[in-house]
Amino acid sequence: MRRIKVGVLGATGSVGQRFVQLLDGHPWFELGALYASERSAGKKYREVAKWFLPYEMPEAAAETVVKSVDDISETEDIALMFSALPRPTAIKVEKSCAQAGYAVSSNVAVHRMEKDVPLVIPEVNRDHLALIEEQRSRRGWDGFIITNPNCSTIVMVLSLKPLMSLKLNEVRVSTMQAVSGAGYAGLPSMAILDNVLPFIATEEGKMESEPLKILGTLEGSEIKDATVNICASCHRVPVIDGHTEAIWVKFEDSVTEAEVKNAFNNFPREIDTPFSPEKPIIVREEQDRPQPKLDRDAGRGMSISVGRIRSGRMKNEVKYIVQGHNTVRGAAGASILNAEVLVEKGYI
Amino acid sequence: MRRIKVGVLGATGSVGQRFVQLLDGHPWFELGALYASERSAGKKYREVAKWFLPYEMPEAAAETVVKSVDDISETEDIALMFSALPRPTAIKVEKSCAQAGYAVSSNVAVHRMEKDVPLVIPEVNRDHLALIEEQRSRRGWDGFIITNPNCSTIVMVLSLKPLMSLKLNEVRVSTMQAVSGAGYAGLPSMAILDNVLPFIATEEGKMESEPLKILGTLEGSEIKDATVNICASCHRVPVIDGHTEAIWVKFEDSVTEAEVKNAFNNFPREIDTPFSPEKPIIVREEQDRPQPKLDRDAGRGMSISVGRIRSGRMKNEVKYIVQGHNTVRGAAGASILNAEVLVEKGYI
Amino acid sequence: MRRIKVGVLGATGSVGQRFVQLLDGHPWFELGALYASERSAGKKYREVAKWFLPYEMPEAAAETVVKSVDDISETEDIALMFSALPRPTAIKVEKSCAQAGYAVSSNVAVHRMEKDVPLVIPEVNRDHLALIEEQRSRRGWDGFIITNPNCSTIVMVLSLKPLMSLKLNEVRVSTMQAVSGAGYAGLPSMAILDNVLPFIATEEGKMESEPLKILGTLEGSEIKDATVNICASCHRVPVIDGHTEAIWVKFEDSVTEAEVKNAFNNFPREIDTPFSPEKPIIVREEQDRPQPKLDRDAGRGMSISVGRIRSGRMKNEVKYIVQGHNTVRGAAGASILNAEVLVEKGYI
Amino acid sequence: MRRIKVGVLGATGSVGQRFVQLLDGHPWFELGALYASERSAGKKYREVAKWFLPYEMPEAAAETVVKSVDDISETEDIALMFSALPRPTAIKVEKSCAQAGYAVSSNVAVHRMEKDVPLVIPEVNRDHLALIEEQRSRRGWDGFIITNPNCSTIVMVLSLKPLMSLKLNEVRVSTMQAVSGAGYAGLPSMAILDNVLPFIATEEGKMESEPLKILGTLEGSEIKDATVNICASCHRVPVIDGHTEAIWVKFEDSVTEAEVKNAFNNFPREIDTPFSPEKPIIVREEQDRPQPKLDRDAGRGMSISVGRIRSGRMKNEVKYIVQGHNTVRGAAGASILNAEVLVEKGYI
Repeated sequence: MRRIKVGVLGATGSVGQRFVQLLDGHPWFELGALYASERSAGKKYREVAKWFLPYEMPEAAAETVVKSVDDISETEDIALMFSALPRPTAIKVEKSCAQAGYAVSSNVAVHRMEKDVPLVIPEVNRDHLALIEEQRSRRGWDGFIITNPNCSTIVMVLSLKPLMSLKLNEVRVSTMQAVSGAGYAGLPSMAILDNVLPFIATEEGKMESEPLKILGTLEGSEIKDATVNICASCHRVPVIDGHTEAIWVKFEDSVTEAEVKNAFNNFPREIDTPFSPEKPIIVREEQDRPQPKLDRDAGRGMSISVGRIRSGRMKNEVKYIVQGHNTVRGAAGASILNAEVLVEKGYI
Repeated sequence: MRRIKVGVLGATGSVGQRFVQLLDGHPWFELGALYASERSAGKKYREVAKWFLPYEMPEAAAETVVKSVDDISETEDIALMFSALPRPTAIKVEKSCAQAGYAVSSNVAVHRMEKDVPLVIPEVNRDHLALIEEQRSRRGWDGFIITNPNCSTIVMVLSLKPLMSLKLNEVRVSTMQAVSGAGYAGLPSMAILDNVLPFIATEEGKMESEPLKILGTLEGSEIKDATVNICASCHRVPVIDGHTEAIWVKFEDSVTEAEVKNAFNNFPREIDTPFSPEKPIIVREEQDRPQPKLDRDAGRGMSISVGRIRSGRMKNEVKYIVQGHNTVRGAAGASILNAEVLVEKGYI
Repeated sequence: MRRIKVGVLGATGSVGQRFVQLLDGHPWFELGALYASERSAGKKYREVAKWFLPYEMPEAAAETVVKSVDDISETEDIALMFSALPRPTAIKVEKSCAQAGYAVSSNVAVHRMEKDVPLVIPEVNRDHLALIEEQRSRRGWDGFIITNPNCSTIVMVLSLKPLMSLKLNEVRVSTMQAVSGAGYAGLPSMAILDNVLPFIATEEGKMESEPLKILGTLEGSEIKDATVNICASCHRVPVIDGHTEAIWVKFEDSVTEAEVKNAFNNFPREIDTPFSPEKPIIVREEQDRPQPKLDRDAGRGMSISVGRIRSGRMKNEVKYIVQGHNTVRGAAGASILNAEVLVEKGYI
Repeated sequence: MRRIKVGVLGATGSVGQRFVQLLDGHPWFELGALYASERSAGKKYREVAKWFLPYEMPEAAAETVVKSVDDISETEDIALMFSALPRPTAIKVEKSCAQAGYAVSSNVAVHRMEKDVPLVIPEVNRDHLALIEEQRSRRGWDGFIITNPNCSTIVMVLSLKPLMSLKLNEVRVSTMQAVSGAGYAGLPSMAILDNVLPFIATEEGKMESEPLKILGTLEGSEIKDATVNICASCHRVPVIDGHTEAIWVKFEDSVTEAEVKNAFNNFPREIDTPFSPEKPIIVREEQDRPQPKLDRDAGRGMSISVGRIRSGRMKNEVKYIVQGHNTVRGAAGASILNAEVLVEKGYI
């Protein structure tokens, strides 16, 4: 198979670097171009990216001359754009890319909730990719935009999906989120060392709204939202990578711990692409797992881990812990997995 | 007023050190004796306590010769014992102290749930101290035992008390607890650096059962448990001091954010002793407070701080964050405050 | 004694906040004005300072309307300015303040090495304040500027001063510096969690040059540099407050551990002002002290602590550890102590 | 090549786990037996090892039934023992293994400084393995013991080796060591969070004495110590893995930064076994490298990284920073690399 040339929009930032690192050696995709702001354009990636990942910068990327996002022509030798743009830039650039004929797999929030934009976790709702047709025809675009959810949403929703058939009614989630989610310079060390921050801007809203679309059903060319009711409380803790979430799930009828655990254990893989983990959900039996330090790299960062499944004190309620890597499964890896499914389904 | 001589049982451990530090300069109490295990007995406190608090060891305590807990006579020149004993020792020693005529104010869990032992947070249920009479007569003791709740329970229950009159039905709480709660050597650095531990042994049970007694009503010589239903998920984070808790409170009828905030703001001081904070509950208006690093020392560690009061997605539900110092308000300071109320009420 | 009105230049930043906190309740100084950049001017301090210290913002400061540093008139009701300005602003503003007749006690680096500007640690070289006359006459100013050294320099030099009479030749110092030294937003959490940064811009140069002036001798109206040779390696570690430094001191002749310890122990207080610690140097006898967490607040943050004094392997060499609070003794507290000595000596 | 069966002595501890993890999939060695204390014997490794590495426990090891170190027969189907035993056990068990005919590659300190025991870093002094003959004949053993140095010594000495030919006279080293070096439960989180510990028991002595043997020359059947003079100051910082060391090197004559850098850059690989890194020494050109978080995994944890090479203030002196993974290159990986060289040289 000849590899597909891809670009990374916003390549110097923290998620951008993850794209560059994860795409290195990818069997299907080949890094074709790196885009950043005007002031980085014309320089080698090595010179403009303040690399902070504990791997050497891939040699090919290091020598690539960065291009400006303000200057993407329609004739780039590229089929697919991954987007890690800052919000204001994304609004403009992602659309113009789609218009110009590129497929855009975006990690940015701006288009997620638009009616004709797929918001996809492949193991959960890859059928929603069918919205692409609607999007193209409605907007008259040659290309299209697909998106993946917010990091903390992905981790939670992967664990909720197998519980939907047990008639899930209510979800309460309390997060303990890693600092990498705020971007490289997003969180001063003075703010988080020996501390907990009980507030993450816009995070609770995303966790409460995005899942309704993802878990919703495609009816014709529209998504009908799921009816589950979600309430989130989001907090930052001094952990580098890996979001941990304490979740209460309330069902219409009585559901046992064993039924919940079975649902997790029986959750199928179904897709088989380079980034799809063998086990999307790993059930930990130890009483003190999952832990971000020990479990974030499971399935090369693409599996989520659940544990401590136990009946709650309230009627029809079970509580458990879920953990997932926020910048791999929850960001760059999510966009790459989505793109792989695009290839499999023939969209690229 | 002549100061009352007090002893500290289990003086060398982490809570024991807090007792020694907090009692230094106390206007009502004077450190009369320090008790520890047989192997520390006969040596100066300075030599046996591996002091870890960021204050100098009080000079008087440093020079005190430690006595053995196995060897407490009935004729010590002491009226009151504070207990920070390890569980197995506490079972034996606290009772023999009470039998020998001492008042025991204990931070240990062993006697908390016994029917005739007061489990007290003064601002919440100091009327429960009346159980002392029942305890003495039933057990034939000259002295008595009173207890304070578990650290995470105290922080939560102080915030729940003003909500009880709003007809509180259900409480879900997710904790982010400081490492000092595990004792000085309780938690290896390898376990918690860059990590979250989603399990604390016996903690969830304590948070679910202790509040029912504390919030219960004294009827004759018995406590009738409160009927609120509590479900806890407990987690350890890399914070030195200060427990942070995300709480969902569900009421029988509709209750607004404003009503909850008013209830917190109007919670009265009522008692006026050296360790009772001017404001038991401090309401923070900032969107990112309370934080353990900034708020744990409020009210010299004896106030709890609440914030982020907001309506939830579920019917009749409000969510908020509460934070309190786990080894001051949640442990040694709690026992001292209880003892102060004993003095005020004439029990000592 | 009527209190002297003082202003804080750069009051919203991290050192500025320390000034505001430390000046609260000062027996000699009264906060008269707070200065910040144009965009904060006209608003209350409470609204513009993102307060991050674990104490409540002092009420009086909170309600003070911030003034612009671009707009300091000559007729302010203020005798003394403390400066925590950003470097470029300091260059312009400190001089114009001095010209306008104010005494300026600055924590900023820009004027430290100028020949007629005193660079002072009161316990070490308060006689250098005599340079003020030279400065005034040479520059024709009514006011004047005095400075304190860089944080890591202060901690080191306080420990070197008593060793000078033992004929000190060479000093090698390796620092483990706290993140607060980089300012509130200076160091991203991603950069320092689970990490050591072996580079702090301009720090080694400051540690190698500033001490020569401070330890130098005033001859007429000039400072003659000390001849000791200093070589520094500077590193940032995940500690919030408190710089720890490993130091090798090499003497002209043989010097024992005991002689070094005696020199530390016999270092006199000599000055007696509100911020001068009873013991400028505290000698710790424990084998694992000083530690920043346990020792930074010694002497209310104004003492340094030394320990682990031991003979080295090289001839005439001794090694030891020193620790001090970088934002109290090493910054705002240093400027305040300098100002107190100005008052005592009649300069204000 | 048929794989050689190896055993791990002290397999449940922190270095023991690293052996198990690093040996998984090793092309030359096959895990044949796991030894631990009597109380773990007879149980599966999965049940007795409190696994703390961020990788899944290797399946084969997990199912292995642990044997008692008190009960090693002479007829085990094993050729080589890796030792991570606690000191007192090592004294007895390592010798009896060597006597019984096993080759022992030990990470334990007890035999390191014995005259006929090789203390080896392959890139530095693999010729010292010739001591094995002397050891066997003198002690009448069928097997033998070889050792690797202390973690902080290995990292330093690898960087010193290429400087020896520049006539190195004096070395001063200040370490910032990771917590994993203290063993899993060696360091309470309360001791190190927001702190620096300026003392590590016996560490400075090891760093000052071991290098003299390693850098010494084999003359006949004896090692003649190197004459360089080393002085160490050792400190623990809140980093999980990776020791960082600030080093001053003083030469007999003038040596430039460029000469030192060249010496590092030209340091040859020479050996080619599975665990020998392609580049034993990696020179970082960035001004703020090496950093443990970014560089500890270089060369799969077997390379050290140096940087910030700069002339010092003292005559003939250069300073630099070195960093290496303390539990891979500095412990289990070191023993494995030594064993590989044993195989290459025909000792096994």
